[in-house]
Amino acid sequence: MRLSKSFVKTLRSAPKDEIAKNGVLLSRAGYIHKEIAGVYDYLPLGLRVIENIKGIIREELNALGCEEVSMTALQNPEPWEKTGRFSDAEVDIWFKTEVASGGTLGLAPTHEEPMIEMLKSYVSSYKDLPLYVYQFQTKFRNELRAKSGIMRGREFLMKDLYSFHTTEEDLDAFYAEAEKAYARIFDRLGLGDSTYETFASGGIFAKFSHEYQTLLDVGEDTIYYNADKSLVFNKEVFNDEVLAEFGAKKEDFTEAKAAEVGNIFKLKFKYTEPLGLKYTDDSNETKTVYMGCYGIGVSRVMGVIAEKFADDKGLVWPEAVAPFKYYLVGIGSEGVLKAEELYKGRENEILFDDRDARPGEKFADAELLGIPYRVVVSDKTLAEGKAEVVSRATGETKMVDLNTLFV
Amino acid sequence: MRLSKSFVKTLRSAPKDEIAKNGVLLSRAGYIHKEIAGVYDYLPLGLRVIENIKGIIREELNALGCEEVSMTALQNPEPWEKTGRFSDAEVDIWFKTEVASGGTLGLAPTHEEPMIEMLKSYVSSYKDLPLYVYQFQTKFRNELRAKSGIMRGREFLMKDLYSFHTTEEDLDAFYAEAEKAYARIFDRLGLGDSTYETFASGGIFAKFSHEYQTLLDVGEDTIYYNADKSLVFNKEVFNDEVLAEFGAKKEDFTEAKAAEVGNIFKLKFKYTEPLGLKYTDDSNETKTVYMGCYGIGVSRVMGVIAEKFADDKGLVWPEAVAPFKYYLVGIGSEGVLKAEELYKGRENEILFDDRDARPGEKFADAELLGIPYRVVVSDKTLAEGKAEVVSRATGETKMVDLNTLFV
Repeated sequence: MRLSKSFVKTLRSAPKDEIAKNGVLLSRAGYIHKEIAGVYDYLPLGLRVIENIKGIIREELNALGCEEVSMTALQNPEPWEKTGRFSDAEVDIWFKTEVASGGTLGLAPTHEEPMIEMLKSYVSSYKDLPLYVYQFQTKFRNELRAKSGIMRGREFLMKDLYSFHTTEEDLDAFYAEAEKAYARIFDRLGLGDSTYETFASGGIFAKFSHEYQTLLDVGEDTIYYNADKSLVFNKEVFNDEVLAEFGAKKEDFTEAKAAEVGNIFKLKFKYTEPLGLKYTDDSNETKTVYMGCYGIGVSRVMGVIAEKFADDKGLVWPEAVAPFKYYLVGIGSEGVLKAEELYKGRENEILFDDRDARPGEKFADAELLGIPYRVVVSDKTLAEGKAEVVSRATGETKMVDLNTLFV
Repeated sequence: MRLSKSFVKTLRSAPKDEIAKNGVLLSRAGYIHKEIAGVYDYLPLGLRVIENIKGIIREELNALGCEEVSMTALQNPEPWEKTGRFSDAEVDIWFKTEVASGGTLGLAPTHEEPMIEMLKSYVSSYKDLPLYVYQFQTKFRNELRAKSGIMRGREFLMKDLYSFHTTEEDLDAFYAEAEKAYARIFDRLGLGDSTYETFASGGIFAKFSHEYQTLLDVGEDTIYYNADKSLVFNKEVFNDEVLAEFGAKKEDFTEAKAAEVGNIFKLKFKYTEPLGLKYTDDSNETKTVYMGCYGIGVSRVMGVIAEKFADDKGLVWPEAVAPFKYYLVGIGSEGVLKAEELYKGRENEILFDDRDARPGEKFADAELLGIPYRVVVSDKTLAEGKAEVVSRATGETKMVDLNTLFV
């Protein structure tokens, strides 16, 4: 992509009411644009980051045999009334809207109910199970406050996977596979070392659920982890009773702030029972389907990565999610010509700063944008047949032979 | 994709209230699932068709230098109030919703206003123009009736492109490029021969706009075209005054029903003036930006293609939008083994009917699903080293050498 041809520019300041670091930097760098608090547009570079995150998640879920669909924002209240979740008293973050032809609809804050309703057309026998269905879909949550940039949205992108099973053992087995897939996903996103699978409240229908919590100073959650991070608890379940159950002692745990980037839940019959998702087993008996659900906040992950790795010069993207791997600058007449030549055929890897601007300005933008490698070709580097390559994450500078530059 | 592993099955009947052919067939074939009238989920095969349509549009727009973004559904009323379009009296298809912290938001039925507002952060000088920004985004329209399957949605997917210019000449030049791109897009979608650029009302700010109308018996529009289709008018502008302007006579035109699949519009200052999108020209004078907009109804296009090409056996997809190119069936022990072998490495091209079912059932599903080529390997065809290949569109049957089958 050529910066000279893009409408996006870096900005000196973020919107006045933007206080979260991720929101400020992503706005200034031109990745996002704020509509209202918690509601953001994704500009070309931001959309590329989102697509990279989706791509990693999609690959890992497809490898588990999951199938992708796309459900709707507008929600018929009927199934939600059956589970008791349409009432504002029960779920207090609904956006609702009136239909011209009469009646109220909701804007989906999650999709368990319509997913189950849809599957009633497809599941009747044990032969139809197990099945695993996911989507990347916009969720709407009528939050009173939304001050965390894209880490807490009123309108945000989520990956939600739902699994359906004949037995609890089969649910458990898939849940274990999903845990492994989640570990791979957060690894690939560059968050593996700092993201812990965390015991959290299971609500009224299970003892625990699991959250994926990424260490982050400005995170909204408090977690407690032991020395080897094999046991991690959300504050809400960090009490003597729970610790006794795991044979653990409070003093062995370290407190930290963290942001929830995913959660997984054995829902079992919680929603399939009231909605009547049944199957006939091999002795022709009618039984209720077991269900699990597995979420990852896609836009939140982008915000957490932005927030976590940024330094005083700007964003720092891990390679796998960066919108481009290289930020290319040509200096001097020879350098500019060579840069044009290097760019050709690599439009998808290289963000080419071909603007009519001073090198210093370009270098500052390269840092604000957080592109992993800044590549500079100048008359001086070319005299040696080389380019200067600077790592955004480490600052390490190398002179690299032009022949081996992008291999 | 293996049918045995997919949760989707073909259904004997569509939802009772589904009357449009596209809705009936797409539901029965498992491409979509109806939530409420005009609100549909896209199941795995349906999502693949949508992605294919998006892919074609994206390629053609990127080639014009357009940049992709993703804007929000939730809309701040402010810019819409400045153009007079937030009032229900002016625009009668708004879904609106209340925010917990106070105030009303709309669900975007289109995106001119937020696009212009966003660009005010990026456009100040003539050097920032022209620019072309597009998105694929869900639109919400509170239609009183929605009985046309996915051809008229309350929630639907649209591609909307907006262009911005310093001069009317520059807008005209880009508009001409967009017309060519649209012709290529509809050609590639398999609708080229039956889709006409049509003069339609320009509303209050231009004499004409252009619609792209696809001939369709159940289309909601009436158009009139001349012998070589060089002049096509929407009924709303097919009158003596307009015909005189083009030196044409009523009797030279044929009437037909058609469905609008796209429209393009020279908006000029219509929205940029009230919203104050200005630039400074090279003599430091402040001027208003010219604007054009260019829509294609992505989900509607899918509905029109389904509706238009279907026959009494089911759907018939053009190759470029089909979810898979081949529908593979193995018959007999040798045939099943060979089918497994052929499938390997071609998971993205082949819908493999590896279900434990009778060939007749598989053949009927192949037809209902509308996959372009049914490929059958049986003990009989294998004796000749061949496979039987049947074209869904023409019914033509060929015996093809296994070595040249997928090349």
